[in-house]
Amino acid sequence: MTDAVHAQASAAETIESIGTPALVLDLTRFERNVARLAQRLESQGVGFRPHLKTAKSVDVAERLFSGGRGPITVSTLKEAEYFADAGFTDMTYAVGLAPDKITRAQALVARGVDATVVIDTAEQARALAEAAPSGNLPGVLIEIDCDGHRGGLRPDDSRIVAIADILRGAGVPLRGVLTHAGESYACRDGDGLPEAAEAERAAAVAAAELLRRRGHEAPVVSVGSTPTAHFARDLAGVTEVRAGVFMFFDLVMNGIGVCTLDDIALSVLATVVGHKPEKGWILVDAGWMAMSRDRGTARHPVDQGYGVVCDLDGVVHPDLIVVDASQEHGIVAIRPGSAASLPALAIGERIRILPNHACATAAQHGEYRVVRAGQRGIAATWQRMGGW
Amino acid sequence: MTDAVHAQASAAETIESIGTPALVLDLTRFERNVARLAQRLESQGVGFRPHLKTAKSVDVAERLFSGGRGPITVSTLKEAEYFADAGFTDMTYAVGLAPDKITRAQALVARGVDATVVIDTAEQARALAEAAPSGNLPGVLIEIDCDGHRGGLRPDDSRIVAIADILRGAGVPLRGVLTHAGESYACRDGDGLPEAAEAERAAAVAAAELLRRRGHEAPVVSVGSTPTAHFARDLAGVTEVRAGVFMFFDLVMNGIGVCTLDDIALSVLATVVGHKPEKGWILVDAGWMAMSRDRGTARHPVDQGYGVVCDLDGVVHPDLIVVDASQEHGIVAIRPGSAASLPALAIGERIRILPNHACATAAQHGEYRVVRAGQRGIAATWQRMGGW
Repeated sequence: MTDAVHAQASAAETIESIGTPALVLDLTRFERNVARLAQRLESQGVGFRPHLKTAKSVDVAERLFSGGRGPITVSTLKEAEYFADAGFTDMTYAVGLAPDKITRAQALVARGVDATVVIDTAEQARALAEAAPSGNLPGVLIEIDCDGHRGGLRPDDSRIVAIADILRGAGVPLRGVLTHAGESYACRDGDGLPEAAEAERAAAVAAAELLRRRGHEAPVVSVGSTPTAHFARDLAGVTEVRAGVFMFFDLVMNGIGVCTLDDIALSVLATVVGHKPEKGWILVDAGWMAMSRDRGTARHPVDQGYGVVCDLDGVVHPDLIVVDASQEHGIVAIRPGSAASLPALAIGERIRILPNHACATAAQHGEYRVVRAGQRGIAATWQRMGGW
Repeated sequence: MTDAVHAQASAAETIESIGTPALVLDLTRFERNVARLAQRLESQGVGFRPHLKTAKSVDVAERLFSGGRGPITVSTLKEAEYFADAGFTDMTYAVGLAPDKITRAQALVARGVDATVVIDTAEQARALAEAAPSGNLPGVLIEIDCDGHRGGLRPDDSRIVAIADILRGAGVPLRGVLTHAGESYACRDGDGLPEAAEAERAAAVAAAELLRRRGHEAPVVSVGSTPTAHFARDLAGVTEVRAGVFMFFDLVMNGIGVCTLDDIALSVLATVVGHKPEKGWILVDAGWMAMSRDRGTARHPVDQGYGVVCDLDGVVHPDLIVVDASQEHGIVAIRPGSAASLPALAIGERIRILPNHACATAAQHGEYRVVRAGQRGIAATWQRMGGW
């Protein structure tokens, strides 16, 4: 991998020279984060289907598997098509299927992709049944609600079997069940995460067993969120785990208790463009367009504003955060309530800002500028995709 | 314009058939919004330099001027280069200049663009002075702080003249002053907006007069924000007004009192993908990736969630909003506290969602799907640019 990374590097580029704002990926931290979860899941004997909604990059995706192109999760059909173009052949589109997207899912199957879609209503099952005569149907997972967070059916809901019956009647391949412990994001400092993981596991397994009791095969029992993936004590009955933000981490994950600040692999490189000493402000050229409007830590015990400020080498400035943002301006200041003093950052000096939410911040950028921990040279520039 | 619009249309596309989520631009409302502000400023005898940070589209920009390609404001140098490629030749880059961006600004001047940059420190002035020998310098506006919102110098600050002196010593062309009434966004229902506009005008004019008293020319006195542009009673001494979101409007502007819901020209087209009747939820395929994480109305008297729901033709559903969002899921529900009942929206049915903040929502999309009010055919698809 090292040779490939360096082959892509532009000779002279460094984080001191590239244009700002820019999205910087610390490859050393990224690799450590990936190894951490991969080893954990391997030791529990469960499959891993990383979610590419955070990374949206083939260069990142290729580095998630020890060999080849493993199974992935995607959040849009455009992502599915993009990764299929790069040779990924096993993917689950983990958003409830709109009936008018069936044709596009069939096109994926027609080109050789082992595609799986997610539904939780009889209407969606009937739409798939109607499409069955045209062939190339994707596999189907029924979405289970493990915590009241979003969509899905409770594991004892009779509609689960009704949906499976509709699918079987039309020859649509039912694969099993999928759930997502979205409420685990409400946990803080690790409290409640083992319990959230167990509730997620138990709901998925119960729903799969309900299907099996009623004569349906349910080979796939898919669970996952980054917090529960890291805190699950037992994954009995689960066949695969999905997670996305684990590879980069962010301030929300830090507040939930899943990572330290030094695990966060993504940052936004910014340049000082102004001072407002009477207000204790330093103005930088990374506003919400570069950071995103995500304020995921706003309801955390420690509100990190629009991000925590580090120096150029990624060393955290204690209590220095982006307190407010306009489209292209960030206002850096000492955290409210702190007695720390504002560091002297000259006009033109550069900082790196750790994001609230890696998925949202990365989505504001078209590329990753890749560095190794402690190094300033740009080792590679990796493109991202977007849109639907 | 009508012919050009129709020439770009794909024959069969309609808002019933295109993929969702999608960014829809109501051209009828857009044209009305543009005419409203253009006529207002024309009647006040002041110049207009629309801010393209919201639209980021040549197709939109071409429709802002009755003839030709008028003066524009941009928020990034990439925007400047993009609009220069399309033949725009007069532009102000309205973010405090990072010294290492001077070379890129000079390249714009070298290709024939009348470019203006904004500074508010002696360090920036000295960096421009150092670049002066290499020629092709942009014009300079000194940023004035009219309301304590962000950057700039108070109009009586002696550093204004000190900066002008540094520029003059090196032959860097000073153009005048620029201010932005960012605090006008804190107004509600129109209250305080005439006063905010007057404070903005007075600060800019006072700073320009200070410069003139000290022997500097200050031909440009630039003010602007969408709220103050619509509420200024007197623009004496001002030479140009900047505004960006006025062309599309949004729920924040509605809450501030600048527009009605029926003026909002941007919406996100979405499809129903699930129901959660026990919670009163309808799930749609537009999450925060399509809406942005902007929750600009969160601190307004009426919190609009992630957006107000309309039917396919843009008719507002009273009290139906997007109460929460995941990356690709929106949760539609009746507004908290309302006694309205949830409409029956079937799986596969489509809605349009009015955004909190047009700048942020548009930035999540690569193109505008253009329709005429009350029509379902896609009249044109216009590309947007992004990045830095």
